[in-house]
Amino acid sequence: MRIKCIVAYDGTDFSGWQIQPDKRSVQEEIQKAIEKVTGVGVTIYGSGRTDAGVHASGQVFHFDSDKDIAPRQWERAINHFLPEDIRIYQSEEVPETFHARYSAQGKVYTYTLSDGVYRPWERHHVYQYPYRRLDENAMREAAKMFLGEHDFSSYCVTNGSGNAIRRIDEITVTRKGDVITMVFKGSGFRRYMVRLLTGALIQVGAHRRSPEFFQDILDSRGGKMCLFKAEPQGLSLTEVIYDEGMTG
Amino acid sequence: MRIKCIVAYDGTDFSGWQIQPDKRSVQEEIQKAIEKVTGVGVTIYGSGRTDAGVHASGQVFHFDSDKDIAPRQWERAINHFLPEDIRIYQSEEVPETFHARYSAQGKVYTYTLSDGVYRPWERHHVYQYPYRRLDENAMREAAKMFLGEHDFSSYCVTNGSGNAIRRIDEITVTRKGDVITMVFKGSGFRRYMVRLLTGALIQVGAHRRSPEFFQDILDSRGGKMCLFKAEPQGLSLTEVIYDEGMTG
Repeated sequence: MRIKCIVAYDGTDFSGWQIQPDKRSVQEEIQKAIEKVTGVGVTIYGSGRTDAGVHASGQVFHFDSDKDIAPRQWERAINHFLPEDIRIYQSEEVPETFHARYSAQGKVYTYTLSDGVYRPWERHHVYQYPYRRLDENAMREAAKMFLGEHDFSSYCVTNGSGNAIRRIDEITVTRKGDVITMVFKGSGFRRYMVRLLTGALIQVGAHRRSPEFFQDILDSRGGKMCLFKAEPQGLSLTEVIYDEGMTG
Repeated sequence: MRIKCIVAYDGTDFSGWQIQPDKRSVQEEIQKAIEKVTGVGVTIYGSGRTDAGVHASGQVFHFDSDKDIAPRQWERAINHFLPEDIRIYQSEEVPETFHARYSAQGKVYTYTLSDGVYRPWERHHVYQYPYRRLDENAMREAAKMFLGEHDFSSYCVTNGSGNAIRRIDEITVTRKGDVITMVFKGSGFRRYMVRLLTGALIQVGAHRRSPEFFQDILDSRGGKMCLFKAEPQGLSLTEVIYDEGMTG
C-alpha cells in the first residue's frame, strides 16, 4: 500500500529535509517515527528538498508499507512518535503509480518578511528586514518579469544536473502592516530559486537595484548570476500540486 | 545618569528574566552587553520578572551609568552586543527617582493561542491548543468576573510575601481566524497570575468548567486554588505603564 502524507515542519532546528550523516533532518525524523509504528525500516520520498531553516506547511512525501493500518490512521500513528517541530496533517492511500516528486505538477512557496520593528520572537519564520521600508508596489510590478516560462539558470543552483527551465504561474506580493508576504506558484523551483527571486524583489523594493538590472540577469540565462539570496527563515513550502487523479 | 530602556525578547531560550547560576537569563545577557559598552560591571532593574518561555515586547528596565553616551544612543550601543533574541527598542534618560519596578503604575500582558491546526513554526509564541474549538464569547463574558480590585490569592503564587490584592482594568478577548488573543491590563500581576487567569478562561471557553466554578475559587481568596495554568509560550509582557512625569 502506498501512503501519501502532507506534513508541516518548523525548519529552524533542521539541517534541511534530506538525510545527512550526523545532522538532524526532517526526513530522518519522519522515517524514525514510521519505523516505530511499523517495526521495519522505511524510506520516504519527498516532493523535493527544503534547505536548512526553511519551513513547510504543505510538504508531501510517500512511502510503501504492508502494515495493516487504515490509510487515514497513519496520520495519528506517525504523529504520536514525531517531535513537536514536525506534524503530519493528512494521510491517504494513493495508487502505486503516485510518486511525491515525479507526480508533482507544481509547487507553492511563501516568503514572509517584516520591514518594521525587529520582533525577536518572529525571527525564525518572518525575515526581519532591518534596513528600510520596502516599496511593495515596485516589488509587485517587478515580479511580472518572472512570470511564464523562462530559463532560470541565473536564479538557481543546478550543480550541472538538468535544466533550469521552469514556468511561474503567479507571484503575489501583499502587505499587511509591516509584513510583506510573497507567494510563488509554479511548475517547480530549483535549489535557491525562490530565495534568489525574493532577493531580487527585495533589492527592487529597497530601490537599490532597478527591475532592468534583474531583467538583464534573467535574459543572460546563467551568464550572469543573481547574487541576492533572501534568508532561509522567511521561506515556507506551502503546497505541492498534483493531478486530481493521482491522489486518493 | 539613570537610563530607562524598553526591551523586547524571545523567551524561548531563556530560563526567564532573572539571573540564575548556570542558566541563560535575559537580565544577564543585557548586563553583559552593557558591560561591553561601558567597561564596568552594572546591575539592571527590571519592572518585574518573566518566567522561562515567556516573551516581552515592552519590558522595561533601568540602570545607572556615568558613561558619556547620549541617552538615545544607548539603544544602539547595547543592541550591538546583544544576541538576536533580545532587542532594545528605546532608551532615554529619566530622573534618579525613577525605578523600573517601583514606579510602574500598571502592566499589560498579551496571551495568544490558536485552536486551529497545529503550526509547528508558531509553537514557541502562539500556544497551540490541541483539544477543541474554544467559545471566545464565553471567555469574554467570564473575564468580567476578574475586573476591578480583588484578592487574587487563588490565582497566583505569592510564596508568603506581600498580598495578592490587585486591580484589573481591562481584559479583552478577540478572535481572528483560529487565533485568540487575550489582553490583560491591570495595576500589577503576581507570579503565574496571568497564566492562571488564562487557564481559567480556556476551561470556560472549552465548556469544561463553568464561570461559577472559577468565581467560587476567586471568592475563596486562596482557600481554593485555580489548578489550570496556561503554557508560558503564549504569554508576552506587552507594556509597562508609568506616570508621564516619571519618564523622559
